[in-house]
Amino acid sequence: MRLSPAITELMRALRTLPGVGPKSAQRMAFQILERQRDAGLQLAQALSEAIERVGHCSVCRTLTESEICELCANEGRRQAGLLCIVETPADVLAIEQTGQYQGCYFVLMGHLSPLDGIGPEDIGLDKLAERLANESVAEIILATNPTIEGEATAHYIAELARQHSIQTSRIAHGVPVGGELEYVDQATLGHAFSGRKRIDFDAF
Amino acid sequence: MRLSPAITELMRALRTLPGVGPKSAQRMAFQILERQRDAGLQLAQALSEAIERVGHCSVCRTLTESEICELCANEGRRQAGLLCIVETPADVLAIEQTGQYQGCYFVLMGHLSPLDGIGPEDIGLDKLAERLANESVAEIILATNPTIEGEATAHYIAELARQHSIQTSRIAHGVPVGGELEYVDQATLGHAFSGRKRIDFDAF
Repeated sequence: MRLSPAITELMRALRTLPGVGPKSAQRMAFQILERQRDAGLQLAQALSEAIERVGHCSVCRTLTESEICELCANEGRRQAGLLCIVETPADVLAIEQTGQYQGCYFVLMGHLSPLDGIGPEDIGLDKLAERLANESVAEIILATNPTIEGEATAHYIAELARQHSIQTSRIAHGVPVGGELEYVDQATLGHAFSGRKRIDFDAF
Repeated sequence: MRLSPAITELMRALRTLPGVGPKSAQRMAFQILERQRDAGLQLAQALSEAIERVGHCSVCRTLTESEICELCANEGRRQAGLLCIVETPADVLAIEQTGQYQGCYFVLMGHLSPLDGIGPEDIGLDKLAERLANESVAEIILATNPTIEGEATAHYIAELARQHSIQTSRIAHGVPVGGELEYVDQATLGHAFSGRKRIDFDAF
C-alpha cells in the first residue's frame, strides 16, 4: 500500500532528524496530521526562521542570531582572561550548566580530521590564532572530546598556544562521579590512575 | 545561559513531536543548524505541504491527499464486501503489511470516550451507519485496539451492524507469535484460553 505522496515525503523528511527511524517518523507524521496541525505549522515556521536567522558568533563561532553571542558580549567574562576550547555549541551548554566556569569560549564546530579533509582553517584555528595574538588570554582550557580526533585537535591547539606563550590546560579525564569502577572502561581507568592527585592532609 | 530566541523556539517546537524530550530536541536543533540546513528546510516545507494538502478520505476517513484514498478507489477491494474497522491510519498500514486482508477499511480516527466528550459522531459512526445502509457489506471485522475504549467502541459498532443485519467479527486476541507464555500478561493469557481452537485431526 502506498501512502499519499505528501505523507511519504513528510516521513522521509522526519527521518533526517537524529535518532528518528522509519517507525518513529511514521508516528510523528500521523500524530501531527491527526491531532497537532497547529504545532506542526509552528515547527515548520520555527525551522525556517532558525535556519534563516541563526549564524555564527563573530568572536567564538557558536550558533547565535546576533553578531556577537551573549557570552562573548559579557564584559566580566572577557576580563577573566580564560578561553575554553570546545567542539560544539552543545558542549558550551553542558559546561555552562555546571556553573563552575566564568570565562569565554571558542567553539571549533568540529575537530581536526585530515581523512575527511577537515583542516585547521575549517575549525577556525586561523581565527583563534588571531585572537591569541590580539587579546590578552591568561589560560586556554582544552575541552575537546576525549576521542582520537579530539585529542589530536587539543594537541594542535596546545602547540598554537605555546607559540603565543599562553598557559594551557586539558580538562581532567577519569572515573565519572557516581560511576562504579567495575563498569569503567580500561582507557578511562588508565587516565584515572595516571592523573591521580596526592591527598594533602594539611588541607583537611 | 540563554540560547538565542530562534534556537530556543526551535527546541520548543521539536519537543511537540512524540518521543522527543529536551535533550533530543537540543540534539536535533543543533544538528540541523550545524550540518543539515538543507534537510531542515525540506522538513519545514514537507510539514507545511502535508498539513495543507492532507485531508480525510470521503469514504473511509483515513488521511489522504485525494478525495478518495487509494484503497477505497480499488474496485476489487470494494467488491470483496469486507469492511475492517480500525482506530487510526497507522492501523491500516499495519494490517496492509500482513498482506492477508483484501477488503476495505473504515478509520474511526479515535475511539469512543464519553469522559473526553468523544461520542459516536466524532468518530464518524453516523457516516458508517450511512454506508452500512447503502452499500452491500457482507462482513464487518472489528480491529479496534484491545483497550477498554477500543472494546467499548467495538461493542457499539457490533450493535450498529446488528441493526443492519450484517455479520460481524472481532480479530483474535491471544499470545503473540514468538512470545513466551511466561512473559504474557494475565488478560492476554485469559483471552488465549477462552478463545482456544479445537485441533481438527482430519485437517492434518
